[in-house]
Amino acid sequence: MADVQKLLIVGGVAGGASAAARARRLNEAAQIIVFERGPYVSFANCGLPYHLGGDIAERESLLLHTPESLTARFGLDVRVNSEVLSIDRSNKTVRVLNRLTGDEYLESYDALILAPGAAPIRPPLPGLDHERVFTLRTVPDLDRLMNVMTPDVKHVTVVGAGFIGLETVEALRHRGLQASLVERGTQVLTPLDAEMTAPLSHELKAHGVELLLGESLQSVNAGERLTLQMESGRQVTTDLVVLAIGVKPENQLAREAGLEIGSTGGVYVNEQQQTSDSSIYAVGDAVEVRHTINGKAVLLPLAGPANRQGRIAADTIFGRQAHYRGSQGTAICKVFDHTAASTGLNEKTLQAANMPYQKLYLHGNDHASYYPGATMISLKVLFDPASGKLLGAQAVGEKGVDKRIDVLAVALQAGMTIDDLAEMELSYAPPYGAAKDPVNLAGMAAQNWQAGLLQLTQPEDLAQASDAQIIDVREPEEIASGQIAGARNLPLSQLRQLSHLLDKNKPVIVYCMVGLRGYIAQRHLSQLGFNVRSLNGGYKTWQMWQATKTA
Amino acid sequence: MADVQKLLIVGGVAGGASAAARARRLNEAAQIIVFERGPYVSFANCGLPYHLGGDIAERESLLLHTPESLTARFGLDVRVNSEVLSIDRSNKTVRVLNRLTGDEYLESYDALILAPGAAPIRPPLPGLDHERVFTLRTVPDLDRLMNVMTPDVKHVTVVGAGFIGLETVEALRHRGLQASLVERGTQVLTPLDAEMTAPLSHELKAHGVELLLGESLQSVNAGERLTLQMESGRQVTTDLVVLAIGVKPENQLAREAGLEIGSTGGVYVNEQQQTSDSSIYAVGDAVEVRHTINGKAVLLPLAGPANRQGRIAADTIFGRQAHYRGSQGTAICKVFDHTAASTGLNEKTLQAANMPYQKLYLHGNDHASYYPGATMISLKVLFDPASGKLLGAQAVGEKGVDKRIDVLAVALQAGMTIDDLAEMELSYAPPYGAAKDPVNLAGMAAQNWQAGLLQLTQPEDLAQASDAQIIDVREPEEIASGQIAGARNLPLSQLRQLSHLLDKNKPVIVYCMVGLRGYIAQRHLSQLGFNVRSLNGGYKTWQMWQATKTA
Repeated sequence: MADVQKLLIVGGVAGGASAAARARRLNEAAQIIVFERGPYVSFANCGLPYHLGGDIAERESLLLHTPESLTARFGLDVRVNSEVLSIDRSNKTVRVLNRLTGDEYLESYDALILAPGAAPIRPPLPGLDHERVFTLRTVPDLDRLMNVMTPDVKHVTVVGAGFIGLETVEALRHRGLQASLVERGTQVLTPLDAEMTAPLSHELKAHGVELLLGESLQSVNAGERLTLQMESGRQVTTDLVVLAIGVKPENQLAREAGLEIGSTGGVYVNEQQQTSDSSIYAVGDAVEVRHTINGKAVLLPLAGPANRQGRIAADTIFGRQAHYRGSQGTAICKVFDHTAASTGLNEKTLQAANMPYQKLYLHGNDHASYYPGATMISLKVLFDPASGKLLGAQAVGEKGVDKRIDVLAVALQAGMTIDDLAEMELSYAPPYGAAKDPVNLAGMAAQNWQAGLLQLTQPEDLAQASDAQIIDVREPEEIASGQIAGARNLPLSQLRQLSHLLDKNKPVIVYCMVGLRGYIAQRHLSQLGFNVRSLNGGYKTWQMWQATKTA
Repeated sequence: MADVQKLLIVGGVAGGASAAARARRLNEAAQIIVFERGPYVSFANCGLPYHLGGDIAERESLLLHTPESLTARFGLDVRVNSEVLSIDRSNKTVRVLNRLTGDEYLESYDALILAPGAAPIRPPLPGLDHERVFTLRTVPDLDRLMNVMTPDVKHVTVVGAGFIGLETVEALRHRGLQASLVERGTQVLTPLDAEMTAPLSHELKAHGVELLLGESLQSVNAGERLTLQMESGRQVTTDLVVLAIGVKPENQLAREAGLEIGSTGGVYVNEQQQTSDSSIYAVGDAVEVRHTINGKAVLLPLAGPANRQGRIAADTIFGRQAHYRGSQGTAICKVFDHTAASTGLNEKTLQAANMPYQKLYLHGNDHASYYPGATMISLKVLFDPASGKLLGAQAVGEKGVDKRIDVLAVALQAGMTIDDLAEMELSYAPPYGAAKDPVNLAGMAAQNWQAGLLQLTQPEDLAQASDAQIIDVREPEEIASGQIAGARNLPLSQLRQLSHLLDKNKPVIVYCMVGLRGYIAQRHLSQLGFNVRSLNGGYKTWQMWQATKTA
């Protein structure tokens, strides 16, 4: 756009703040006004649960900037408590409400950036407007919640087990409250596939969270305490409720202005973050993005993309080449002492889209097992069976999950294949990793599968393999903690002596704890002429998969 | 190679062990014999310093496999204390010495893999053969060192400040010994550029290590204690010495067999790990590799590549397509509470090779600054100024260094550019990262430099800028801990009011703590018509650079 002398930005957090700062660095002369409906700009949205839980002691640490600091640093005109009510596209003006005074006024623009974010979903259920039902999206939300945390509040119920729900329920447990977590679906953290969330459900329960999966809130009934009525008939008595069902794009302003809204409900933008009106841009949680893997329009409300989109909008407005490449949905969540993270597409999505895929489970230590403190990471890698191209990855564990998902996120961004994973040269010393990192091992195992060396049985297919001889190749002492029903123990260390005990006319399925020894056993038996498969990810994966059946 | 029925492997650690296991998984029928000169196979070489220091309590944890366990699992014929003395290439036999019995015998092969590793360098200096001068490469080395750790040993001197030297000196401090670290060069950890090692030198001194840089050992003189004579005339009195000067490829067997040796002293191999004799393969620390960035033949003794090369040799021998892509030199080192890591080429190498490059320093927190426990990572990114293609990266800090170097190692592997770094979608929640990760920020800053928005002055060029107005844009309270001589304080928060105090006829150099506010100030002043540059990485980089001048 040529000669933008006046830029208005609706929303002063994440994408809006990034756009404003970038705009000023590109153009000293332009008038830049930022309207923020709430009382705060540039606050640490993602930090709210951690102040609630007490990890972040000072509320002030959440306020990254004030209008004054932004004005001093960037020469911005920052107006908080200022709601943009409407856009007059033909006259290029917006109508602004000063929420403190009630005054309304018009402001003209050469370019307009919409960064209104997303709003917590509040389903129209009876009682949900009760004053003890909260959301946690803004600093005032946090303040309201903190204010009611009186000693008579003993029990809190969080509705929704997504990122915010999980972080919030952990925060409330940190505060010493009893907590229930209600989730309509049959798993927590839906960006991951169900089996990968089994350790998270376990972790929640281990930390005293009452986890109610498959329960749908029907109504909130106020009495001395609150009674939550579930569709199943179940009731939960609680003192307050935090709704964390999800968010929806704040698209009203754009919609009423006649801007194109995508099928997802997010504001449609092109790669330059331009809406259907070339003078109006939109960024952040309010817009729909292209998924980098399948090209579909999706809602992926994430802070990193929001910031980058703000930068791109400012670049475009002030004449620089820039485009947004799409989002791949990299996300991470702390769940007490566990971390879960994912990037790209999950198996559910691949199945629903009928995209060909293969999956590989790999359980490996975050660093060399002989160095103290090693913990296990469970990794799921999804890839195209023909080309080997990575489609997505998920990981859960205590430590090092963020590193592996970031490594895989870059691999996904680069269009890498399982061969590339196998060949990755990652940093290794015993405190940090292993000579073969779990990511390398996942790549190698996937290569073996692709080359026909590794024959896999999926845990969900095991029940159908009733004619097979199921062989547990772990050492006897490992089996004390459980094994698969009907399995026979032939330890790998004795398999070379004992393989004659197996029936060559019946298929064999071998497994160990994580899959490595199972693979070795499978190679051995396969070369002896057995029809043999290895259980993907071994007993560990099977346990995770089983847990989702009994949750 | 067709029809290999008998495979001999020289060396049973890392590459040799990987090759043997892979060979068996590919071919159940072949006879596979592993010769290991020492008493142990498949031991955790990289773990030795950590047992010395007590982190790894049990010596047995270092022994990943025994000959018996390898035989049971893989049907290998593993012969320890068995030294291969010579190769008869025309008859395809090797002569083996049983070091326990003194017997010698011939063994024939269809294919031979050399994985003898590398040997610690022992320069021919007077007194270096003293019984209190040690190396730390094998389990027997470790045992010898542990055995002399009697209470009268008060002081140990480590010679050489590379990976092993640093890990060893830390281990000895953990044992409560006084320790000196002698290094001929002017910096520790030469894979990094000097300024990036300043925090490591500081960390060593802070943990009681006497760091003697630029000191070259001349002789070891035995008396009641040992006296180390340096070329400078300096003397160090100590109780024992650990030599960690470096390693050289064990190439004698290959050389005497007439196999081609590279200019680096490493055994020459092609991409299939084949030596100049097509029946003989070599892998691991004994071979020279192609550097993936500049294509040069180099020695990069690393465990990950060794393991992968072993796998590739076995694949080739048994008729599978595989090739080694080269090494990029990813490495990492724990130095007390700090971590240092690097990947790709460093600035020294780029300069020596006359390759065009630009460097970008970025100091950023390992996770969101408002979440407790954030620590600073100092990152140096080297890239091609024209294409923006990544050439190398280095990082140092307390936490999250491994993650950033791994992310950058994958980026390097993928041939990514600074634009790709800026667009990386890494996992973000406050405990793990930031909406803009240090890697993203480094990419964005590099983009800004490439686009001409960011004008840089390097710390080493500051001394030459005597005509410039040097402006410290930090807030006054930040300056208490020091500033650059001659700098004038104009806080960024007041720059918009006070920029008229600057002389437009003289160049301006701005800096803040890490470079972000310096960049903002530079953009502001630049648009006002000043000739202004921003100090690369701010005061923090300048401090690191200064420290190398006074070390």
